[in-house]
Amino acid sequence: MTNTMPKVVILGAGFGGLFTARALMDSPVDILLIDRNNYHTFTPLIYQVATCGLDVDDVSYPVRKIFSDKPNVNFLLGEVIDIHQDRPQVSVQTADGILPIAYDYLIVAVGSVTNTFGNTQIDHYGFGLKTVEDAVRLRSHILGLLERADWQPDPVKKQAMTTFVVVGGGPTGLETAGALYELYQTVLQREYHTLKGIPPRVILIEATDTVLRPYPAALQVSAIHQLQQMGIDVRLSQKLVGITPETITLDNGEVIPTHTLVWAAGVKGSGLAAKLGVELLAGGRIPVEPTLEVIGRPNIYAVGDITYLKDPSGMAYPQVIPVAQQQAKRAAQNILNQIQGQPQAAFSYFDRGSMATIGRTRAVAWLFNRVEVSGFIAWMAWLGLHLVTLLGFRNQISVFLNWVWNYVAFPLRGGYYHRTLISTREQADSEPDAVS
Amino acid sequence: MTNTMPKVVILGAGFGGLFTARALMDSPVDILLIDRNNYHTFTPLIYQVATCGLDVDDVSYPVRKIFSDKPNVNFLLGEVIDIHQDRPQVSVQTADGILPIAYDYLIVAVGSVTNTFGNTQIDHYGFGLKTVEDAVRLRSHILGLLERADWQPDPVKKQAMTTFVVVGGGPTGLETAGALYELYQTVLQREYHTLKGIPPRVILIEATDTVLRPYPAALQVSAIHQLQQMGIDVRLSQKLVGITPETITLDNGEVIPTHTLVWAAGVKGSGLAAKLGVELLAGGRIPVEPTLEVIGRPNIYAVGDITYLKDPSGMAYPQVIPVAQQQAKRAAQNILNQIQGQPQAAFSYFDRGSMATIGRTRAVAWLFNRVEVSGFIAWMAWLGLHLVTLLGFRNQISVFLNWVWNYVAFPLRGGYYHRTLISTREQADSEPDAVS
Repeated sequence: MTNTMPKVVILGAGFGGLFTARALMDSPVDILLIDRNNYHTFTPLIYQVATCGLDVDDVSYPVRKIFSDKPNVNFLLGEVIDIHQDRPQVSVQTADGILPIAYDYLIVAVGSVTNTFGNTQIDHYGFGLKTVEDAVRLRSHILGLLERADWQPDPVKKQAMTTFVVVGGGPTGLETAGALYELYQTVLQREYHTLKGIPPRVILIEATDTVLRPYPAALQVSAIHQLQQMGIDVRLSQKLVGITPETITLDNGEVIPTHTLVWAAGVKGSGLAAKLGVELLAGGRIPVEPTLEVIGRPNIYAVGDITYLKDPSGMAYPQVIPVAQQQAKRAAQNILNQIQGQPQAAFSYFDRGSMATIGRTRAVAWLFNRVEVSGFIAWMAWLGLHLVTLLGFRNQISVFLNWVWNYVAFPLRGGYYHRTLISTREQADSEPDAVS
Repeated sequence: MTNTMPKVVILGAGFGGLFTARALMDSPVDILLIDRNNYHTFTPLIYQVATCGLDVDDVSYPVRKIFSDKPNVNFLLGEVIDIHQDRPQVSVQTADGILPIAYDYLIVAVGSVTNTFGNTQIDHYGFGLKTVEDAVRLRSHILGLLERADWQPDPVKKQAMTTFVVVGGGPTGLETAGALYELYQTVLQREYHTLKGIPPRVILIEATDTVLRPYPAALQVSAIHQLQQMGIDVRLSQKLVGITPETITLDNGEVIPTHTLVWAAGVKGSGLAAKLGVELLAGGRIPVEPTLEVIGRPNIYAVGDITYLKDPSGMAYPQVIPVAQQQAKRAAQNILNQIQGQPQAAFSYFDRGSMATIGRTRAVAWLFNRVEVSGFIAWMAWLGLHLVTLLGFRNQISVFLNWVWNYVAFPLRGGYYHRTLISTREQADSEPDAVS
């Protein structure tokens, strides 16, 4: 395919990368999207995959399907291992070796990863919740653990196996804590005969003195109240200082027996950013001009969680999906402007607000950063927004049906929930190419 | 849980084990079902998971959910490693070590596994299709392979990567060949820009001179005709004699470049049967009395694929689901009779016939072994029967919607198809308990 269209290479098919490609696809540019997965992930619902409410394919969408009728959009499955500093080229590790990919314009949209702040114990024994693989791993762990708990004769050990600890008072932490509590209480406990007498124990740990830090105080208080009303043990101003496979230790000296620690207490920029050769800012994020060009690297743009850009008030834009989507559109337009010799424009953000859900029927929402809503109405708003923003009509239908099943039909029929435990042992042991 | 009810231990939660448990669950017996998976698999649709048409949870169903309101039915997740010959006990490998399980009555329903007849090359490079794991492995292989093919500059290598070989002229072989052809032709080829000019190549290899051996000759001919009409290269009276990662060799000397060999040419009894200490019959199957008691092992019954029992005409009952289901009911009743001091009865089989589908809109059906149907009407019958016999209303709805999407809405919207490639590399490399 020889052509004279400018070649735009996009690293990452998350919200930033995908929205850049969509904003560019109808223009005369040759686009290559590179990701190590063949799918885009709808990250806000990953915790529901981990807690059996949704299936993997409900939150992932094949990248190639999105662009199947766009001959100028190509896809490469592989891991970007280098962004060269001496030439406009990246190196991609593929199943067939390392492929050099040249570009005219590069968009770095490689997102963020779980940040355990160098605590290797958490790396080893904790569970992150950033990817579909994370979700499947946590789900398999919980299902396997309860199978063990049901046969565990020692009541103390049994309680440890049914104690779930979530660290982090952001939306993911709250949502995961709520979903774990309900999964255990309304589904799993009914099916493990010897667990019927063991009440759910879910502990949410937050190092600061409140949850949902950027929200107004009234919503923070409401969120804490709703968590406690559910039955979740909320620990504010407490820190995790130690972890083993069967315990965690808090900074007040308390030791909590548990096999399950979900770490939702921080993210950092993907390690690939370091290859740009620019000095990274807080959290491993790339400094960009207001035009989203990487400072000091011409023709390279960065969007989404990986970028560090200050808003007019001097605070960095948050690492949330709407910022990534709006930056993607700005970067795409700036590249087109650059191609046409037009001036680029600065990024400006329109904030529609934030919401977080706390189990079935509870939520808080801060609409347009003005209207504060909590409880059932906030929850309905949360459901509606997530359905509407899901990619693909089929996924919308599937998620909707899963929710109807789990939330509405549940009291009548026992809910459904996705509980096929594909054990990690078998995955690890099996030869990928073997007849078993 | 001390009780005086007789304890029935069932090995395997396939159709044989599950139907035995269901036939016993309302009687005063204490039932323990043991399986290495926490789910029952609807095996007839595994090939659709492998070919992206259905998702894992559409064909698997949590065992505990089925028995959640039956306090006398328990479940143990583990691998049975021994059936002791000197005492009524089995040993089960669990995540917490080896557990000894005593029984009053034992039902061996451990089913069959892929049989490569000792060919370790096929074990290594071929893909079986007996389990959900097999399906996920084959799907990941195909999706990963086409990602490579799209970037492969050599047209000969490209053709090898898009050549799919299926060995075995039984229903699984025909169904898989048809589904692979359609997956490539109608979905994948459209989305890999450089594959648009490469026609699908699916080769079905059968060692004997016909397909669907037990069917009437007219239906065999119809099946072959329908396969060829689709575009599948049907090779009768040809045998696989060699296989490497990139080629297969037939007994006529022909070498076919391919990376994908699906082996659907035989099953054998699960290896656990050997632990019974009885002499096994053809295919590693357990000899049973007409009452389904294992010959020479009192209080042990065997049902389903693992058994060898002759029908009135002197032929062994086939290894199909209806035989397993009906044997399960007979064995359950015979155990209840034994407990009550009543005489046991011999198994008798009511054969409702067989069907096999060949891609979208094509099939053959031999109803009640009398009525021969082929083409679209047979396909509709196949769809209806499989929907009705699927376990669980939610799975029926989900499969129905997937089929509507893939078969009916396809020409309008591009179909859906489940294509989340969770790479085996990442699964193999990742620490099961690690934050990534």
